Amino acid sequence: MSIITVIGSGVMGSAMSFPARDNGHTVRLVGTMLDREIIEHARKTGYHLNLNRTLPEGVEYYQLEELDDALIGADLIIGGVSSFGVEWFGNEIIHRLPKDIPVLSVTKGMYNDPNGALTSYPKYYSSISPEHDFCAIGGPCTSYELADTDHTCICFCGNNMDSLLSMRSLLETSYYNIELTTDIEGLECAVALKNAYALAVSLAVGLSLKEGDILHYNSQAALFGQSIREMRKLLTLFGFCDENIIYGAGDLYVTVFGGRTRKLGTLLGMGHSFDSAMQELSGITLESVVITKRVGEAVLAYIDAGKASKEDFPLLLHIYEIITTNIKVDIPWKDFLK
Amino acid sequence: MSIITVIGSGVMGSAMSFPARDNGHTVRLVGTMLDREIIEHARKTGYHLNLNRTLPEGVEYYQLEELDDALIGADLIIGGVSSFGVEWFGNEIIHRLPKDIPVLSVTKGMYNDPNGALTSYPKYYSSISPEHDFCAIGGPCTSYELADTDHTCICFCGNNMDSLLSMRSLLETSYYNIELTTDIEGLECAVALKNAYALAVSLAVGLSLKEGDILHYNSQAALFGQSIREMRKLLTLFGFCDENIIYGAGDLYVTVFGGRTRKLGTLLGMGHSFDSAMQELSGITLESVVITKRVGEAVLAYIDAGKASKEDFPLLLHIYEIITTNIKVDIPWKDFLK
Repeated sequence: MSIITVIGSGVMGSAMSFPARDNGHTVRLVGTMLDREIIEHARKTGYHLNLNRTLPEGVEYYQLEELDDALIGADLIIGGVSSFGVEWFGNEIIHRLPKDIPVLSVTKGMYNDPNGALTSYPKYYSSISPEHDFCAIGGPCTSYELADTDHTCICFCGNNMDSLLSMRSLLETSYYNIELTTDIEGLECAVALKNAYALAVSLAVGLSLKEGDILHYNSQAALFGQSIREMRKLLTLFGFCDENIIYGAGDLYVTVFGGRTRKLGTLLGMGHSFDSAMQELSGITLESVVITKRVGEAVLAYIDAGKASKEDFPLLLHIYEIITTNIKVDIPWKDFLK
Repeated sequence: MSIITVIGSGVMGSAMSFPARDNGHTVRLVGTMLDREIIEHARKTGYHLNLNRTLPEGVEYYQLEELDDALIGADLIIGGVSSFGVEWFGNEIIHRLPKDIPVLSVTKGMYNDPNGALTSYPKYYSSISPEHDFCAIGGPCTSYELADTDHTCICFCGNNMDSLLSMRSLLETSYYNIELTTDIEGLECAVALKNAYALAVSLAVGLSLKEGDILHYNSQAALFGQSIREMRKLLTLFGFCDENIIYGAGDLYVTVFGGRTRKLGTLLGMGHSFDSAMQELSGITLESVVITKRVGEAVLAYIDAGKASKEDFPLLLHIYEIITTNIKVDIPWKDFLK
């Protein structure tokens, strides 16, 4: 059995303790400075305050100041921070991690490099510490359902297939099904894009609810199809293999059905401006908003450079405009037509 | 203004009267022998008994024996039968239709030709009457929501772009958005495949409901992603452009959320055998079952001929086996992994 140290005890990092403990590994869950209460409570009761579930028996809990202890003898490190913790993880944590142990990140998203191009988090981390082996998880998986041991199919990506195979052998269970790929950028881009497009598809939920109580699906499906079209074009534009659309599509599907991105899209579709919708959501910054801005900026840079056409991305550019200029939803249906 | 004659007053054929009437055209809705009551009732009240909506003012109603009258001066014929009416339409109706008027079919599905290969309905109709110009509609559109004038994006396919442009000018409205393609087989295959895969994705709905009342999405998303992967491979295997996956994905999305295919998949996922589930559904034959059998047989023929590998289609072959041998659901999760 192995020792797996999870840094960041948010919902997804913590949910990883289910397959890890089911395979009999030692799991050390380390909270960030934002997780003090979660760790303190779980230590006493085993219950995770945000995941709203009892974590598996035997998980060991550490506060951030106990990180070095938690790393002793570790065979795998899981980076459990959200995309808002990526810079902190890069600046404060990475240099404390042993270089001979792979780091598997649960964080989805992309980073604009200084040239405006989109970069995956593993690549960003590698730019800070090239000696580490940074890997990541992509594909449709909500933490709550992983904790409920629902059947889930995701993909681990990394540069080194041997390392990926070894991580899979540690974490694969009957319900946690793991594909492997060395196409880090393609996978990470596909699953990051789904956050932006989940916002787009959710607009139709709001448009439908504005008209009545019964949810309609033609409009959602039209935006879903347009999303798949634009996501494939974006993967190609950014130089990645469009085969990754499989993970993007599955991840888009699961994201449309839950969480705050759907809520934001619904409010926008019902006629709120972005500012007003964000007030309703108590001003919490959403990953979908961040990624929409980042992808929008990257695409506009390509368009400015004459390397892309705005006719190819009407839906993305519409949600980008909603977010950045506060215009109301007015879906450019006719611009979708070939 | 033009005259549009719709043959078959099922829900989709009848729903086409909304964009047609909104554009001011004369609409003649002709019932089949199965639609007598619908036509009789609508003639008196304007209300469609199956669509559960009042049809637009001014629609003219015809029983089947009045078909010739309904065709006088027509500029466009819409074939409104379901896939179970295709042979009847081919054998009994086509030879009565003027050859200089295009026929736009709302029917989705594919036909196994005598060699076991899959053929679109326009191609099947053309084999009966090569002089006619047969076109079809693909993409995500439920009849109820079209009748509610929800925003919808679909695609007309046909051999002749001028003819498609003319049909679009007749039927396009602010809410009914029409793309055009001459890739009939690719589009029709993509939107037919979604019926089979909607059954597959719905299995996860049943698996989830077996465990509790709250719907979970990880498993649905995993099957959705696998469906997209297999649908793309099938389009390629059958020699079609995989760009059509856009329509297939949107159509899959809308089909998972409604109707009897979801109901059947849910029952199977909850543990019913196919025979038992069909009893629950009062034995009504579903298009999704028919298309699953047809696609399954086509793929098995390719595998027998050494032109495809069964490893590429684990999900399709599992639902094919459920339907043809009455085995219970046991999703081959590990076979999805690369």
